[in-house]
Amino acid sequence: MAITVVGSVAFDTIETPAGRRERCLGGAATYFSLAASYFTDVRVIAVVGEDFGRRQEAVFQERKIDTRGIEHMAGKSFFWEGSYLENLNEAKTHITDLNVFAAFEPKIPDVYRDSEFLFLANIDPILQRRVREAMPDVKLVAGDTMNYWIKDHRPALLEILKELDILLINDTETKMIAGNNNLVQAARAVMALGPKELVVKHGEYGATLFGEEAKTFRAPAMPLEEVVDPTGAGDSFAGGFFGYLASQPEQSPAAYRRAMFYGSVMGSFACERFGTERLQKLTREEIDERFNLFRELTHLA
Amino acid sequence: MAITVVGSVAFDTIETPAGRRERCLGGAATYFSLAASYFTDVRVIAVVGEDFGRRQEAVFQERKIDTRGIEHMAGKSFFWEGSYLENLNEAKTHITDLNVFAAFEPKIPDVYRDSEFLFLANIDPILQRRVREAMPDVKLVAGDTMNYWIKDHRPALLEILKELDILLINDTETKMIAGNNNLVQAARAVMALGPKELVVKHGEYGATLFGEEAKTFRAPAMPLEEVVDPTGAGDSFAGGFFGYLASQPEQSPAAYRRAMFYGSVMGSFACERFGTERLQKLTREEIDERFNLFRELTHLA
Repeated sequence: MAITVVGSVAFDTIETPAGRRERCLGGAATYFSLAASYFTDVRVIAVVGEDFGRRQEAVFQERKIDTRGIEHMAGKSFFWEGSYLENLNEAKTHITDLNVFAAFEPKIPDVYRDSEFLFLANIDPILQRRVREAMPDVKLVAGDTMNYWIKDHRPALLEILKELDILLINDTETKMIAGNNNLVQAARAVMALGPKELVVKHGEYGATLFGEEAKTFRAPAMPLEEVVDPTGAGDSFAGGFFGYLASQPEQSPAAYRRAMFYGSVMGSFACERFGTERLQKLTREEIDERFNLFRELTHLA
Repeated sequence: MAITVVGSVAFDTIETPAGRRERCLGGAATYFSLAASYFTDVRVIAVVGEDFGRRQEAVFQERKIDTRGIEHMAGKSFFWEGSYLENLNEAKTHITDLNVFAAFEPKIPDVYRDSEFLFLANIDPILQRRVREAMPDVKLVAGDTMNYWIKDHRPALLEILKELDILLINDTETKMIAGNNNLVQAARAVMALGPKELVVKHGEYGATLFGEEAKTFRAPAMPLEEVVDPTGAGDSFAGGFFGYLASQPEQSPAAYRRAMFYGSVMGSFACERFGTERLQKLTREEIDERFNLFRELTHLA
């Protein structure tokens, strides 16, 4: 079943201990949709500038991702520059230029309206809510957010949380929303605000699913020999997770558990090369091979 | 098969968000032996002062732990005071009084000499080596260490690492020994120094086993509703891990995996009460119940 995703499509300049790349294709919606595209049809809603050309468009096309919802505006695309020189687990932001993204008004193509799954990547919660309201018939809505919205846009964030079936955030964001330093208590408090399932991402230590449907479940991350670039790992996790769920006839507790594994799998691939390089050229066989590796890594027998 | 453990038996004053306790029974050898005692016979080598009386002795007796190797000296026992007010994952040390521990010369009772398993808890690597050499017939030797020995006693540490079958340390210690910030690369570098199996403890995120015998394996930690006191969780992990291994007829890869789970189980119990309180009063049924919970928490189906 098709997923519509709304979020950023951007250019990133990234520096890590493995090197530096100028103006890679990036953005949450990009990572999400590439990762999800290995499981199901994906449709993107975003805004880009004149610097987004055929080469960038081709990255989506090759993965058969529907880009009719990517609006082209005069000006430049969202640009981010950051580094991970001291700590691979946390980006240091040097530049954030919103550019055309500052005026983003998500427009939903009519051909997207039969999507049964909706992913609201990390954007202004007011926009997340607008998209959600414009697509009242979706079957399952998942979303992400970040510290900026949690701290300074709490009322709008609380509104969209009510609308989410699944929220995917990290440890710090969970504790920040709840104002509670114990992860289990914080998770429960966040779920009381709306999301029926909460996926807390722990970076290199995997992720935990807290839920109504599924019992608490912890998926590992891959211990990686080399983390080339962690940018987009969380969005790739979300894409693998939600993409797999959308591909299943039933979103059963067992499907949620496998989805957690596919999330970890896609997050681990994302880290192996700069930007979206690795996510562009995977095969379903490689993905399932790594899924099996994750099973071996965590299962007793 | 019996385990001999050498390490500290101490008094701890602990402050956490859950409260404060004065002079609890503590020390690495105490936590280790209590945790291991649910799986196999445990014999302790340590030194205590005149403040270690019948009440403390009884804690070991009730778990049928052999204390004939605990030497009693004039003076006070090792005393540690620390708090976890800001961060439950890292103790802030306020006081470390070595007291009688400063003159510790491990003496091995003859009745301990047929032990087939030896655990060298975190003490001076010179003493670890002396004990290891005095027990040449043990079948499996595991050990722990800490930043202090890694930084300031490297030559002695390198000597004992050569003698270890299994080393149990945390992420920071692994990276510090290897001088490498990537966990997988660091783990490999540490294993090149001697240990055939390396268990890296990730605190609230579980632990990873890197090994010759066993393939890489990641055990979760329990997401705990309330962490009352994390003191001794790592030593309790080691006790559960090594105790379970020693209880098995064969130390197969599958046994190592289950041992990782039992390590996590005992570590999680340790955090639920101050000091050794929770570890003193468990049943094997409670332990296996939690083991099964861990399996549910991590297994796909």
